[in-house]
Amino acid sequence: MSAMPQPLDAVLHPTSVIEAPRLSRRIGVKLTLVSETFQHTGSFKFRAAYHLALNVPQRQLITASSGNFGQALAYACGLLGKSCRVVMPATSARVKMDAVREYGGMVDEVDTRVKSRAARVAELAADYPEAFVASPYDDPLVIEGNASLGEEIAALGDRFDAIIVPVGGGGLAAGLITGLRRAGRSTPVIGAEPLLANDAARSLRAGRILANESEPRTIADGARTLCLGRHNWEVLQAGLAGIVEVPEALIVQGVKLLFELANLKAEPTGALAVAALLTEPERFRGQSVCCVVSGGNVDGKVYRTLLR
Amino acid sequence: MSAMPQPLDAVLHPTSVIEAPRLSRRIGVKLTLVSETFQHTGSFKFRAAYHLALNVPQRQLITASSGNFGQALAYACGLLGKSCRVVMPATSARVKMDAVREYGGMVDEVDTRVKSRAARVAELAADYPEAFVASPYDDPLVIEGNASLGEEIAALGDRFDAIIVPVGGGGLAAGLITGLRRAGRSTPVIGAEPLLANDAARSLRAGRILANESEPRTIADGARTLCLGRHNWEVLQAGLAGIVEVPEALIVQGVKLLFELANLKAEPTGALAVAALLTEPERFRGQSVCCVVSGGNVDGKVYRTLLR
Repeated sequence: MSAMPQPLDAVLHPTSVIEAPRLSRRIGVKLTLVSETFQHTGSFKFRAAYHLALNVPQRQLITASSGNFGQALAYACGLLGKSCRVVMPATSARVKMDAVREYGGMVDEVDTRVKSRAARVAELAADYPEAFVASPYDDPLVIEGNASLGEEIAALGDRFDAIIVPVGGGGLAAGLITGLRRAGRSTPVIGAEPLLANDAARSLRAGRILANESEPRTIADGARTLCLGRHNWEVLQAGLAGIVEVPEALIVQGVKLLFELANLKAEPTGALAVAALLTEPERFRGQSVCCVVSGGNVDGKVYRTLLR
Repeated sequence: MSAMPQPLDAVLHPTSVIEAPRLSRRIGVKLTLVSETFQHTGSFKFRAAYHLALNVPQRQLITASSGNFGQALAYACGLLGKSCRVVMPATSARVKMDAVREYGGMVDEVDTRVKSRAARVAELAADYPEAFVASPYDDPLVIEGNASLGEEIAALGDRFDAIIVPVGGGGLAAGLITGLRRAGRSTPVIGAEPLLANDAARSLRAGRILANESEPRTIADGARTLCLGRHNWEVLQAGLAGIVEVPEALIVQGVKLLFELANLKAEPTGALAVAALLTEPERFRGQSVCCVVSGGNVDGKVYRTLLR
């Protein structure tokens, strides 16, 4: 099927660099958006998924994801002639399951009242011992795939006072820092995390990985992780210049302002970095700030509610 | 204020090229979106407005526009240190007036029950004889400004079987054809026009400019023009390979599909080209098609309704 597999750089869609003068004026910063909403499968996750699927020798991959990583891995495996099983709660939105299937992945529905996703992944791993079980955010290959975004931002020149990036499991932030530093940029990188899911902020304060007690109920569904990945923590502990903890109302406001003043459809997690500016406006006043918009996949019904 | 004014090429935001595999599969074409939604002021109108404001000697400009051209001219004049008056019906959406003001333009409200926009423009022209009265779509400078988009598409390579572009007053289509042909591309260019405002399609059939009897009530507000501009007609009569007349319901469907399958916020007029594919799917089946998304400025309330 695949002749000679292509490296990530040859396959990915370059990030979309969007100057947003109206949004800049409203917030009081010189804002550049770096948007992954037009990346393959609609989020940055393709970078890690493709790099991982390319570099593991296995022809079959298994992952648990109700969101962007599942779609990204399904599509990446399709490009590479590999097969992909995605464990999803049976209660997942139909459109998300459809998307995984449309990208060529197999959806494995699990009734999470009876069995956890992790347990179902373990079953599948036993059934398919030749398969690779992929973590959406805790793998050096994930960091390396996401480093490509850091390199792209570095190539924009040394023009930012700060770069703000959403933090869930930490794979994007860790990759971004890795790519930037490798390209010789020392620009401070600041995480944007929902206040309701502030395990990363608490971890930085404590100096060790702390977990949320249960899956946080933030609207930013990409940040509903229990805790940072271990590999990411190694990078983030030394590499992050801070984390802004964003209240839910400002995440909604971020989605709205991106729509109204930048013509950008962002998912709630994707709006976290802009929402961080709204949360601590004085901290960034007058600076040149790059905000990473990590993805745009949001259900129409949810989006209509957010715009209200 | 302005030292040495910069040419359009140095100022414009390159168009956003978005491959849309899910939308392609749904429609049955190989689709490339060329989106002007992230252009300065959110639509292609900036190209013409800046080129015009740059090349007329007058320091004051007057135009009538309730939509994208007014915002674009206001912003362009601001960049060039010129002043700009935009005649708008007093009933225009507040957000549109605010946008013109935010971009540095003066809004001149006219009660259209008492006085037409054209009459108010004539009054202003008499009050300010030193000012230039700018047409949003009937001026060789408008065609020339929009030709920059044709040149950008030509630079993507000779890979399209057809290019589809929204048609209102015809300035974008005429500019696109001019730029493409100058760059040596003979790719067929097809217009997309609301069926409710099909003066251009009827004009092509008649071999002369025909007008709509009154302002058409299409949802695609950028195409509510009475007739094609004369300068545009010269280019379009010979240069257009056809026009697709798009029903209102498919314009709405186009907006929705761009949202759902390409993460793109488009205004109704901006969705016309994609809607043309939905209108005549067999005509384009299996072809490589470039659809121009001309703008993204749509009110949140209207957009919520469209997504329903």
